[in-house]
Amino acid sequence: MGVTSDPKSSAKSSQGNFFEDFSLGQEIVHATPRTLTAGDAAVYTALYGSRFVMSSSDAFARAVGLKAAPLDDLLVFHVVFGKTVADVSVNALANLGYAAGVFGAPVYAGDTLAVISTVIGLKENRDNRAGIVYVRSVGRNQRREMVVDYVRWVMVPKRDPHAPRPGAPPAAAVPELLEAVAAEALKVPAGFDRGGYDTVAAGGPHLWDAYRTGDRIDHLDGITIEEADHMTAARLYQNSARVHFNQHAERSGRFGRRIVYGGHVISIARALSFNGLANAFRIAAINGGRHVAPSFAGDTIYAWSEVLAKAALPGRADIGALRLRTVATKDRRADDFPGRGADGAYDPAVVLDFDYWALMPRQAAGD
Amino acid sequence: MGVTSDPKSSAKSSQGNFFEDFSLGQEIVHATPRTLTAGDAAVYTALYGSRFVMSSSDAFARAVGLKAAPLDDLLVFHVVFGKTVADVSVNALANLGYAAGVFGAPVYAGDTLAVISTVIGLKENRDNRAGIVYVRSVGRNQRREMVVDYVRWVMVPKRDPHAPRPGAPPAAAVPELLEAVAAEALKVPAGFDRGGYDTVAAGGPHLWDAYRTGDRIDHLDGITIEEADHMTAARLYQNSARVHFNQHAERSGRFGRRIVYGGHVISIARALSFNGLANAFRIAAINGGRHVAPSFAGDTIYAWSEVLAKAALPGRADIGALRLRTVATKDRRADDFPGRGADGAYDPAVVLDFDYWALMPRQAAGD
Amino acid sequence: MGVTSDPKSSAKSSQGNFFEDFSLGQEIVHATPRTLTAGDAAVYTALYGSRFVMSSSDAFARAVGLKAAPLDDLLVFHVVFGKTVADVSVNALANLGYAAGVFGAPVYAGDTLAVISTVIGLKENRDNRAGIVYVRSVGRNQRREMVVDYVRWVMVPKRDPHAPRPGAPPAAAVPELLEAVAAEALKVPAGFDRGGYDTVAAGGPHLWDAYRTGDRIDHLDGITIEEADHMTAARLYQNSARVHFNQHAERSGRFGRRIVYGGHVISIARALSFNGLANAFRIAAINGGRHVAPSFAGDTIYAWSEVLAKAALPGRADIGALRLRTVATKDRRADDFPGRGADGAYDPAVVLDFDYWALMPRQAAGD
Repeated sequence: MGVTSDPKSSAKSSQGNFFEDFSLGQEIVHATPRTLTAGDAAVYTALYGSRFVMSSSDAFARAVGLKAAPLDDLLVFHVVFGKTVADVSVNALANLGYAAGVFGAPVYAGDTLAVISTVIGLKENRDNRAGIVYVRSVGRNQRREMVVDYVRWVMVPKRDPHAPRPGAPPAAAVPELLEAVAAEALKVPAGFDRGGYDTVAAGGPHLWDAYRTGDRIDHLDGITIEEADHMTAARLYQNSARVHFNQHAERSGRFGRRIVYGGHVISIARALSFNGLANAFRIAAINGGRHVAPSFAGDTIYAWSEVLAKAALPGRADIGALRLRTVATKDRRADDFPGRGADGAYDPAVVLDFDYWALMPRQAAGD
Repeated sequence: MGVTSDPKSSAKSSQGNFFEDFSLGQEIVHATPRTLTAGDAAVYTALYGSRFVMSSSDAFARAVGLKAAPLDDLLVFHVVFGKTVADVSVNALANLGYAAGVFGAPVYAGDTLAVISTVIGLKENRDNRAGIVYVRSVGRNQRREMVVDYVRWVMVPKRDPHAPRPGAPPAAAVPELLEAVAAEALKVPAGFDRGGYDTVAAGGPHLWDAYRTGDRIDHLDGITIEEADHMTAARLYQNSARVHFNQHAERSGRFGRRIVYGGHVISIARALSFNGLANAFRIAAINGGRHVAPSFAGDTIYAWSEVLAKAALPGRADIGALRLRTVATKDRRADDFPGRGADGAYDPAVVLDFDYWALMPRQAAGD
Repeated sequence: MGVTSDPKSSAKSSQGNFFEDFSLGQEIVHATPRTLTAGDAAVYTALYGSRFVMSSSDAFARAVGLKAAPLDDLLVFHVVFGKTVADVSVNALANLGYAAGVFGAPVYAGDTLAVISTVIGLKENRDNRAGIVYVRSVGRNQRREMVVDYVRWVMVPKRDPHAPRPGAPPAAAVPELLEAVAAEALKVPAGFDRGGYDTVAAGGPHLWDAYRTGDRIDHLDGITIEEADHMTAARLYQNSARVHFNQHAERSGRFGRRIVYGGHVISIARALSFNGLANAFRIAAINGGRHVAPSFAGDTIYAWSEVLAKAALPGRADIGALRLRTVATKDRRADDFPGRGADGAYDPAVVLDFDYWALMPRQAAGD
């Protein structure tokens, strides 16, 4: 029987990968390279209202030695992430985590990004119905320079839960991941010159020297999510995960409604964090993140941040790194810094616990 | 009495054209030429999440001989269509059909489009209250190259239904339209070089050779329409049809709500069709389309496609054409290919039946 | 006690300024200079569907002597306004008014805008709980050319209502503002050449000569506001006023819901006014505006305009100015020109009464 005689047959569309389709060391070249433009930057601004100056002003970026305003680091991350969805996570039962994310070359309007993932871990579940797939994904620009390099792991169902996977990898095929990226691995954009950095234009007086480990900052404002907004975001990122777009299917799903892409909440929290972290001009690494609870349209997101650590950078007296934890809540102000209680349980309003390194200028003699 | 003394008078705004205002052979130069930019491309991506590679990556487009990523064909079509609304269809009782649409020069960021329509048919209704107007609309870039050329027909009310139109055209003034654009009339973008075409980057292994007439493909996913999304789309296209924007007026209209621009549904269906038709990199012609039922915010659109015909292109061994029919449904999966039943009646969930030619690379010796 | 030990402490985020924080003559350099691009122009088009030709077509703009299509004047105004919010009005109890707005150099894609405000008036309320702050804000491009220069005044609460402000300014510190910008102060874009102006492309036959003082024009159409749309707009403008974004907080606020940025309504009304004022290609000055009532998602905005005055421009036979009043209503057609009654009270549907100067070509000998 041919394709046309079987009403359920549709041999040319892809159902995505199942656990059996992955093998250790496998390299996946993801589809649809993407040229990012000033248009994408504008849509990103319209989605989050971010006021971090580096991505807002060509003039500012040039004054600190860059060739133009680079695109927002999280826009780059989301686009690179989006490319991996169709191959890695379109069937995922759960997005379990991400780590070891390092940002490389800044991305400028006109750069074309392409992404390759490598399977670095596989672990079948005890019930044989699914397994965890670990991939390291590397996004590169058209000059083959790394723009972001990170690891994530997802639980993927088996196509056939009754057939034990032949040659299933041993438990040892789980990669070891550090709790955080080492400060030495953080990359300062080439050519960055702190001399031209203007804190007034940047919107905040506090430089790296002024932050102390343990500082906590309420970012004060809240932003309500609309269905159109989170879908627009996921589409901009060409993220094809079904749960974000299809109300007809999700109506009978676990939550009865579309689920907001977790990265959308990260970007909202980052935009809110401008108030208190205005000089954290670049996300240099993503150490990890927990999406503690799903977010939905109608939720209002608040955020607060904590300084987990400070690091000087090798050979740089002009710039330092802050390891930050930004916690987002929904429908609850963050002015008392809700997080995990003494019992380790999260405040029920917490939706995100995000751990990253940001770069910030240091106080200069002339300041 | 002057304008100012009559509260209903408003002589400087236009009420649009009525049936009496059109004459056979009349040429209408439409207002507001439009420069399309990388910004428009980004908004388009954010509206549909399209993953077709040609419009996504400058690097890919250059590898196949184009100067950059051209703008999405449907974005071009919608913008050209939008320009005609104020003159042709703002008062339309019904958008009855379109056909004979041919795409010409690819449109690049920075190109300025202008549109001229010619009235090629007129047919007054028997009840003398309205008539059908046929126009051929041609969009050109700033070098006067045709970018899209198509025919549409709409039913337009008469200004004065009691005055039979003097000199009304004979029934013969109905243009003859072919069922489909001839394959010989399809245009391959100048400079296209199949040698650089990378199916992995494009996201699908299936080339022209692999498709057979009669193949049916379920595109699997569904996308829910929001009011903000379809209005954003129509505004991007500067489409001023009132039914899309005005809830206050539509509340007492036929459906009690705003109607989604039919082209928005076409673009959603096209974006969904990436899964199964990833290498259909260009829409070369629009043979026709039926908007079987209106769509509204809240509807989830699914789509499936059928290969109606295959055509080699004169003098080209590297590229062929597929005549495709893409059917979109609302709030109903398309995995059993709902369409017309044996009685000719559509499945009640069908909203769109769209017939077009797409270009696709052919298998090469080295593949 | 340090920051970390006080759960309410958050010393590095800014609560914004209170009445005591302002002093006469104080200069405020606002944060986050912004490079506007073709991307911002596209998002703006997608928000309002504006069809005014000058910002739509590079080809048209070049034909009249400009280097490219300038960005929409109101986009420029909103971005400049947005920059002042964090410093001037984030705590405002009321946005009381604006006036004396003059547009200078056209803004082109790639220009970077920065804004400085000067406090030109202060007046403490009698109850000592708040006061009115008058600022003059000047937006400049990267060549230091003025792009827009305007005055606004807001009521700002005192941080400590019980402490009378030492050195409070005398009542004389209220600036005198003219009812309207003088026609002599209006600026025609440098290089403008009326010879290349094509009224067909512009979409309307009526030039400056055809309008008479007292003319009233119903702009016919209505546009319904969505939450996603007005928030997208305010985010595009990097406007951080809380009332637009936070449903969780506004639920218990004065209106129980998010309030639409007043500038969003101005832009909707301006886009609607294309029908009747198609040749009003540039807003040259903002004389003032009253936001008579707040707008909310779900409201449908209609608009009508009145010619308040006509002015020739010194030394220009090719171009003139119209002083226009555009009135917007919600959920009520504008075909009977609702405004203020004989008693001075506004029709309850009126939301905006906006007074501005627009430039329009004059009839030429060859027309």
